[in-house]
Amino acid sequence: MAKDELTPEFRLVGTRPDRPDGLDKVTGRARYGADISMPGMLWGAVVRSPHAHARIVKIDSSNAEALPGVKAVVTRADLPTGLTGEDWNLQENTLAGEKALYDGHAVAAVAATSALRAKEAAKLIEVEYEVLPHVIDVDDAIKPDAPVIREGAADASVPDGSPPNVVRYIDFGHGDVEAGFAEADLVMERSYKTEATHQGYIEPHACMGQMGADGKGEMWVCTQGQWFIRKMCSAVLGTEASQLRVTPSEIGGGFGGKTTIFMEPLSLALSRKAGGRPVKIVMTRSEVLRATGPTASASMDVKIGMKRDGTLTAAHANFRMQGGAFPGAPVDMALFCAFAPYKLQNVHHIGYDVLANRPKCAAYRAPGSPMGAFAVESLVDEMCRELGLDPLEVRLKNAVREGDTASYGPTFGSIGLVETLEATRAHPNLLAPLKPNQGRGVASGYWFNHNGETSVSMAIGEDGTAQVSVGTPDIGGSRASIALMTAETLGIRYEDVRVNVVETGALGVNEPTHGSRATFASGKAAVESAQNAIKEMCKRAANEWGIDPEAVEWVDGAAQPAGPNAGKFPPMTLKEIAANMGNTGGPISGHHESVPPGVGASFGCHVVDVEVDPETGRTTILRYLVVQDAGRAIHPSYVEGQYQGGAAQGIGWALNEAYIYGEDGRLQNTVFLDYRVPVASDLPMIDTEIVEVPNPGHPYGVRGVGETGITPPLPAIANAIHAATGARMRSLPMSPPKVLAALKAGGQG
Amino acid sequence: MAKDELTPEFRLVGTRPDRPDGLDKVTGRARYGADISMPGMLWGAVVRSPHAHARIVKIDSSNAEALPGVKAVVTRADLPTGLTGEDWNLQENTLAGEKALYDGHAVAAVAATSALRAKEAAKLIEVEYEVLPHVIDVDDAIKPDAPVIREGAADASVPDGSPPNVVRYIDFGHGDVEAGFAEADLVMERSYKTEATHQGYIEPHACMGQMGADGKGEMWVCTQGQWFIRKMCSAVLGTEASQLRVTPSEIGGGFGGKTTIFMEPLSLALSRKAGGRPVKIVMTRSEVLRATGPTASASMDVKIGMKRDGTLTAAHANFRMQGGAFPGAPVDMALFCAFAPYKLQNVHHIGYDVLANRPKCAAYRAPGSPMGAFAVESLVDEMCRELGLDPLEVRLKNAVREGDTASYGPTFGSIGLVETLEATRAHPNLLAPLKPNQGRGVASGYWFNHNGETSVSMAIGEDGTAQVSVGTPDIGGSRASIALMTAETLGIRYEDVRVNVVETGALGVNEPTHGSRATFASGKAAVESAQNAIKEMCKRAANEWGIDPEAVEWVDGAAQPAGPNAGKFPPMTLKEIAANMGNTGGPISGHHESVPPGVGASFGCHVVDVEVDPETGRTTILRYLVVQDAGRAIHPSYVEGQYQGGAAQGIGWALNEAYIYGEDGRLQNTVFLDYRVPVASDLPMIDTEIVEVPNPGHPYGVRGVGETGITPPLPAIANAIHAATGARMRSLPMSPPKVLAALKAGGQG
Repeated sequence: MAKDELTPEFRLVGTRPDRPDGLDKVTGRARYGADISMPGMLWGAVVRSPHAHARIVKIDSSNAEALPGVKAVVTRADLPTGLTGEDWNLQENTLAGEKALYDGHAVAAVAATSALRAKEAAKLIEVEYEVLPHVIDVDDAIKPDAPVIREGAADASVPDGSPPNVVRYIDFGHGDVEAGFAEADLVMERSYKTEATHQGYIEPHACMGQMGADGKGEMWVCTQGQWFIRKMCSAVLGTEASQLRVTPSEIGGGFGGKTTIFMEPLSLALSRKAGGRPVKIVMTRSEVLRATGPTASASMDVKIGMKRDGTLTAAHANFRMQGGAFPGAPVDMALFCAFAPYKLQNVHHIGYDVLANRPKCAAYRAPGSPMGAFAVESLVDEMCRELGLDPLEVRLKNAVREGDTASYGPTFGSIGLVETLEATRAHPNLLAPLKPNQGRGVASGYWFNHNGETSVSMAIGEDGTAQVSVGTPDIGGSRASIALMTAETLGIRYEDVRVNVVETGALGVNEPTHGSRATFASGKAAVESAQNAIKEMCKRAANEWGIDPEAVEWVDGAAQPAGPNAGKFPPMTLKEIAANMGNTGGPISGHHESVPPGVGASFGCHVVDVEVDPETGRTTILRYLVVQDAGRAIHPSYVEGQYQGGAAQGIGWALNEAYIYGEDGRLQNTVFLDYRVPVASDLPMIDTEIVEVPNPGHPYGVRGVGETGITPPLPAIANAIHAATGARMRSLPMSPPKVLAALKAGGQG
Repeated sequence: MAKDELTPEFRLVGTRPDRPDGLDKVTGRARYGADISMPGMLWGAVVRSPHAHARIVKIDSSNAEALPGVKAVVTRADLPTGLTGEDWNLQENTLAGEKALYDGHAVAAVAATSALRAKEAAKLIEVEYEVLPHVIDVDDAIKPDAPVIREGAADASVPDGSPPNVVRYIDFGHGDVEAGFAEADLVMERSYKTEATHQGYIEPHACMGQMGADGKGEMWVCTQGQWFIRKMCSAVLGTEASQLRVTPSEIGGGFGGKTTIFMEPLSLALSRKAGGRPVKIVMTRSEVLRATGPTASASMDVKIGMKRDGTLTAAHANFRMQGGAFPGAPVDMALFCAFAPYKLQNVHHIGYDVLANRPKCAAYRAPGSPMGAFAVESLVDEMCRELGLDPLEVRLKNAVREGDTASYGPTFGSIGLVETLEATRAHPNLLAPLKPNQGRGVASGYWFNHNGETSVSMAIGEDGTAQVSVGTPDIGGSRASIALMTAETLGIRYEDVRVNVVETGALGVNEPTHGSRATFASGKAAVESAQNAIKEMCKRAANEWGIDPEAVEWVDGAAQPAGPNAGKFPPMTLKEIAANMGNTGGPISGHHESVPPGVGASFGCHVVDVEVDPETGRTTILRYLVVQDAGRAIHPSYVEGQYQGGAAQGIGWALNEAYIYGEDGRLQNTVFLDYRVPVASDLPMIDTEIVEVPNPGHPYGVRGVGETGITPPLPAIANAIHAATGARMRSLPMSPPKVLAALKAGGQG
């Protein structure tokens, strides 16, 4: 449908063929992280701290080692010393050193001949702790007298005299904020809090690692980025990157949470100690929730000035975020995105990255952006209500366009915010009638999108089929979209292209599938590779015809003589050239390595209708619309899937998800029965509309669509709840008890 | 040792570091064909014909299919029809169609939940045969009234009226042979026979294949060439090459026998029929001997004219070979190599490729060359004895040199036959005293060496290590030799390079590791790839320095400003460039695809001392010397290993190995207890001398060393037995009963 209207110029781009991994996945043939076994394989289990903060006095593994079938125990003493910066953080998170820093922090690991025996052995490893005071909440953690999690962790950005858990300080902006507020007819300042949430991928982390005394290793692992695994494991273990080959499995969800390492170096360290036997480690759900990386929690103050006609005059943000016991909360990203949809002459951002006794945060779909959007888009809505303005019209009035200076500094290239807002305004969902206790909320969202280091190779097969080797694991259908673009470029059938996600030993460096980059960056590199192969195929044809290669063009999957030679020889198809390539110079391949320039940012606008039960405070999603600029939807079904998935996760974050810690600093909701992600019955069919403002930086106009969609749901739902009930919720999750309490308190949540 | 004297100009080439796969192999960590398992895996078993030649009347698999745990049965009816040429031959050999053509020919296959259940099911598949007359021996098979194996199999080369099993006829030469014989002082003509022998690799064929109804498949397999497997399986199954990913396991020997397919398409066909469950098939030794590809057997007449001073005046060869029930006996190669060490004005070759009821032959180390050498080098020796000439001097007198026309037509480039013969003459082994019943034999050998389609990629890691992706499985140490050449070129440590043999989905097309090509062709392509990466690294340094990339040179693993800029900036090492590559343009890789030109042929000369027990006819190898031109020995230990391995296999072929068929056409020696390959106690330490006449067609002078070494042992041992006993053995194997019979018959074997 997008096809007919939007991309009539393409043969394949914009169509919806079956995904190449479809049959594998519906028949159970696809192999995930836990789906590999090897002769002589051992199973690993991890001993984890039951304390949020504790000094490790002693580890005695003698009873565990005496257990028959136990082949290796590793503690921090088995890892090299002397690491610095993020390498040290990764190593410290892999296995605690002097202190356990959060409930679930790995302290030791053991490998044995069965999973059961390994668990048994883990229980026999005795760890003596000296429990220390802990801190969980970001507002507590930033207090000057908070328990100190790590001395000397602050970087140079932190002003002297800052509280001890502040490790990074951010301060940027432009214009004169005070003058801007003075111009405004309404200035409003509010505070907001969001909870840490987990990506909630269905597949727990799983890997099998093998490493010999010679430092040569191999790993099979569920990951978003095999080269990141390679680099990080090598750093933590003190081995050489090229000596480790990492093969990615199929992946049952990642959303940013599988771009880093957790137990992967442990499987290698155990294997190395166990004479090179492969060691498989599969996390339980409880381990995933306690000890992998959720996103950060945030505490935010936002102040905005608005004229009576809706024009924004100035904005100020002060965000505090904790990302666990290590630096890295996405407070910078949150600030960059917070005001991105608005043209602002005067803006000031302040941010604090704060340590707390919680697991090291990882990326989660548009890291930081949803928190900032929750604060800013809630406040804009509140001000529109105050001034009696249409929130959608106010967003259009202030919308950034190509050439505008972004709130965070750079100048926008081609962007589609206005087109997105206009498509939203025209959507029939906005005409749906609402009943009592029902309300409609609107919010915008933004994500930069990312390019990143990318290597792709493409090879022609003897039978005229083509294969593309990419380094970005396929999470959302990128094999299909890359096959479509490659087939379009080569002029052959979609079915004649196989896109393979390959292991690290077979291709140059690639960043993970993150930052919505796979279809943009690997896709662009695949198209470049195909064009290089086309150049070579034209050369082969030219040699055969005895004419200049420049006088050959590629049309509809065939070389044909051009210019003065046009029509002199019949076209030579890819299939014909391929069949003969052994005799005309050898194999034909194309390659591309770069950090592909030309990233296009993506704006979205969501409209949600909710009904709030005044007796229970429960919010029901009646209707949900995602409108977003895809640049170009290579395979519209998977773009729609990304839109729907982002909205679904945002809905969970808005309404129910949160880490619940006890007074003792231990996580209390460690399974999906207690950590409540939305299930199918919680959601209506999510409506989507793909806006296409092609990105001029990509041969087929791709922007990247994976992340923007999780950003607007938090404020859109808050705004809808306000519209339905008059209650303004400024703290997540907007769970029934909290909404009920806000209703009872007269509308302040 | 070769290092110091021969390659002082290189830092790494010519040294002997540990092989990268060494620890894996001695610790059992290396994974061979049978060493993989998958969830849901099935086991396959093959039903094989017990008849040498029989019409298949009916196949009833109903009892097998009724057995619990049986998931699929395939017969020829499950494979597509309409194939032609070699594709048809491969399909027919995979599963018999109308007729079973040899004892062991696959007729059906079954997959079940365990290996035992699969074997049980195979026994329940009832095949009704109509037994036909059969023929085994090549001289019988070429008779006009021999049983006809296949109507219409003869190609256009075969003259009308030829016997029915002749499928190819070869006739070439130059000069005037009759005039040449007229010039000679001695003309001698003799007939020779060699037996078919098996490569005798330790690891039986093993694979695991998986294929869905969508035609997408994967295979793990012990092979010399993953792309050949891909191409051949796709052809036999009627699927698309790019949709099949083939991963090669470590390989426990191949010697040419693992360049083709046997049960591999069966595992895929079974998997496809069993809903995509992976199917593992591991051959027994008996299956390997009955149904994989040994070399051909030969019957040969050779006639040579020699002057009194040893000058050869003319030569004529007439070779008949059977390569089983399909065309493909290496009679062409045998003829090409037969007279290659001799400068001949007048030479004529005739050859016949003949069908017999035996398994389809496969390549075996220098296919054909040992047979021709046995005939020609025996006859040259016999003539030297007759004329009282030193066989080594006669070989030197007639030796071909650069620029000479080869006996088979082309003009020789740089070759090292003279140097090899001179090094042989100077070797101390020639001075060892001999006792009664002991004798010394000398013979030369030749192999072209091969290039073939080659794709290699090289990538720099972020930590300054490098990886090379090659498509040629490592049989004889090619990972070590390619790592040495790559590290030498890049100017980094050997240990900082990892060479990975990758699956088909990750690289362009490659021919197998055959034709002694891996170190030559993949090595040359790796050097080219490294040079491409060096170019890119110089560019990055030039950009950093703000100078022209042409003004940068690569010295000792670092970019340094050259020419007018020399000394202006400190050198920038590979490690430094790698660490920063993400910020200077992205990943750095180098690639190369070609059929690398510049192959250099390799000559060898062997000298063997034997003792023959006059009472039993048993021949003991006392001393064995291999002298061969390597071009350049990149890793001398593995070159020596190839020389020794070739000699060992040649000794087995010469003395003991043979396929023994009963009157019923069934193979009688189907295990290694009966098919007698040499064991360690049969052999002395084999002495080697590496001659280095660098091949100008390779950046480090490589020729390829794997095959020549199997060629001279057959005649060298025959000549030594003659020297020891006076018995001239003209039929292989020269087993104790045959030698004893020859001694009793007065010296004619």
